[in-house]
Amino acid sequence: MIMASLNCKLLPVLRKILPKPNAGCWRAVVPNRRTDLFFSTGLGAQCQLHNEQGANRNTLTGKVDRFGGVTVHLSELDLPPDISDGGFELLLRDSLTQWRAEGRVAVWLHVPIAQSRFVAAAAAHGFTFHHARGDRSTLSLWLGEGESRLPLYATHQVGVAGAVLDETNGKVLVVQDKNKTKNAWKFPGGLSDPGENIGDTAVREVLEETGVRSEFQSLLSVRQQHNHPGAFGMSDLYLICRMRPLSFHIEFCTQECLRCEWIDLEELARTGHTTPITSRVSRLLLHGLMHGFQHIDLGMEVLPAVYSGMFYQLYHRPLPMGDSTSPNV
Amino acid sequence: MIMASLNCKLLPVLRKILPKPNAGCWRAVVPNRRTDLFFSTGLGAQCQLHNEQGANRNTLTGKVDRFGGVTVHLSELDLPPDISDGGFELLLRDSLTQWRAEGRVAVWLHVPIAQSRFVAAAAAHGFTFHHARGDRSTLSLWLGEGESRLPLYATHQVGVAGAVLDETNGKVLVVQDKNKTKNAWKFPGGLSDPGENIGDTAVREVLEETGVRSEFQSLLSVRQQHNHPGAFGMSDLYLICRMRPLSFHIEFCTQECLRCEWIDLEELARTGHTTPITSRVSRLLLHGLMHGFQHIDLGMEVLPAVYSGMFYQLYHRPLPMGDSTSPNV
Repeated sequence: MIMASLNCKLLPVLRKILPKPNAGCWRAVVPNRRTDLFFSTGLGAQCQLHNEQGANRNTLTGKVDRFGGVTVHLSELDLPPDISDGGFELLLRDSLTQWRAEGRVAVWLHVPIAQSRFVAAAAAHGFTFHHARGDRSTLSLWLGEGESRLPLYATHQVGVAGAVLDETNGKVLVVQDKNKTKNAWKFPGGLSDPGENIGDTAVREVLEETGVRSEFQSLLSVRQQHNHPGAFGMSDLYLICRMRPLSFHIEFCTQECLRCEWIDLEELARTGHTTPITSRVSRLLLHGLMHGFQHIDLGMEVLPAVYSGMFYQLYHRPLPMGDSTSPNV
Repeated sequence: MIMASLNCKLLPVLRKILPKPNAGCWRAVVPNRRTDLFFSTGLGAQCQLHNEQGANRNTLTGKVDRFGGVTVHLSELDLPPDISDGGFELLLRDSLTQWRAEGRVAVWLHVPIAQSRFVAAAAAHGFTFHHARGDRSTLSLWLGEGESRLPLYATHQVGVAGAVLDETNGKVLVVQDKNKTKNAWKFPGGLSDPGENIGDTAVREVLEETGVRSEFQSLLSVRQQHNHPGAFGMSDLYLICRMRPLSFHIEFCTQECLRCEWIDLEELARTGHTTPITSRVSRLLLHGLMHGFQHIDLGMEVLPAVYSGMFYQLYHRPLPMGDSTSPNV
């Protein structure tokens, strides 16, 4: 709470030093994000900061964002190929002096992997890695007052499991992982691929692990776990979906699974040879099978994003007929 | 599907070149993860690879994981301080030759930010950034057959909104963001801090934006959005929680919000001056207010993780009394 009020108290101070907004510079704003404040323009800066070149000083050319941050893409600069690490450090030092004088609150530095020798020089001036992927890294340095308010990079990995239930006989598809210290029955599942929708991950993972084709029906459960050893110490969100089988023949991946069977849902709900989450969801499924899945399901619909014009998937309890848009599952 | 079966077909080939498992080397395994296969031991390698030092070749000392990958921490090596970039590249080249000869399937290279000059040399041998944060980067190179099967880093940011409903008068707490192209009513919310639980984010964000203290009641909705402009192009999971107000006086953050009001839930469910997701959730809340929140809620419980011994939060529809562990909200 202290940080909260502190953050909010800081802002008036910061706003004083922000450049006067220029309509042309403002990027499309992301909804529902406190962290819009001081968001990098690395994804599309729209106005150019012209540095004084003369006066015996060269500085890096950056781009200013609406929040008073500067973004520098080393790949877009004409740095002398033979510039020494020391030479770059001087250039960066003079640039930081200028940006501070201009009241900039943050610097984003995008570095191609082949130019990574400049990263150490940047680190000497306080830059740290914001994130890196593939062939480039992004460093950041907070110049504003108080704690950094720069938005963080992705914090969660997302895994999805599919509980494939054959309603005709009350059997559910379960696997036992290989090389586990405890061979417990669980629903097939795994990590989402980048950009993959929750239901699609469930379909893919069920097929990969068991050979069974299935169809997404609903979202049943969400699990959040932090400091996850399987997520490089980051957080993990695991979603369990109710699936309808489209085929029944099991051909499980012997590299991933020790066993794979259709077992009675009632047995799975009773047995101790399973994980707590599997046991819980099996009881939930049993309740749905006996009293109707409308009691346990979260339905999925596709809705338009306000600003980006893209679409997103929204999961929630079904609304009574006529009180909801047509489902889009 | 093709990739799926391809992946599974590849594994027998890969297994042939995996070192014979040594019980001492096997790390605690993460449940429900296809990507256990070829998981980095960067978080805790447990056996040492002894390289031949003689024969006129020096190689980097790495640690082998159960999947046949090698992990090298540059910070743990006694590299000559004056080693040239070319000298390191030769060292890495010889190391790669040896690791390939030994049938290693992947290499993880952990590089302190101050030693980033070695990153370019590694890139020349095909290494790319797996991730980077703060003062170190982690590079990876796939040596096995077929496509890389190394697990990815976090892919999602997580945001949480709190729908604070005063059941005594049917009013709900809404805000309008500053500097939005469309000033639509929405529920206060923002990004989760690292390691922060969903309900805690809702409480914090509601307090920061509106000054109102509130208490987590249930999870109402989950939204997944990809290529999110506010997530550096990564994916976004946004969760909306039902909250109970603990205070009612509004003191909203004028830096983040244009307006903040308690408005009639019925009005919010009707108005066009809101976002699609807010409108949908307001109708959901209205249904709950009229017919009982048990129709719309996902309750939260804390359950133990099987392998790590840690605990996680599990959200799902409530089970009938006696068929569920005691809630732990």
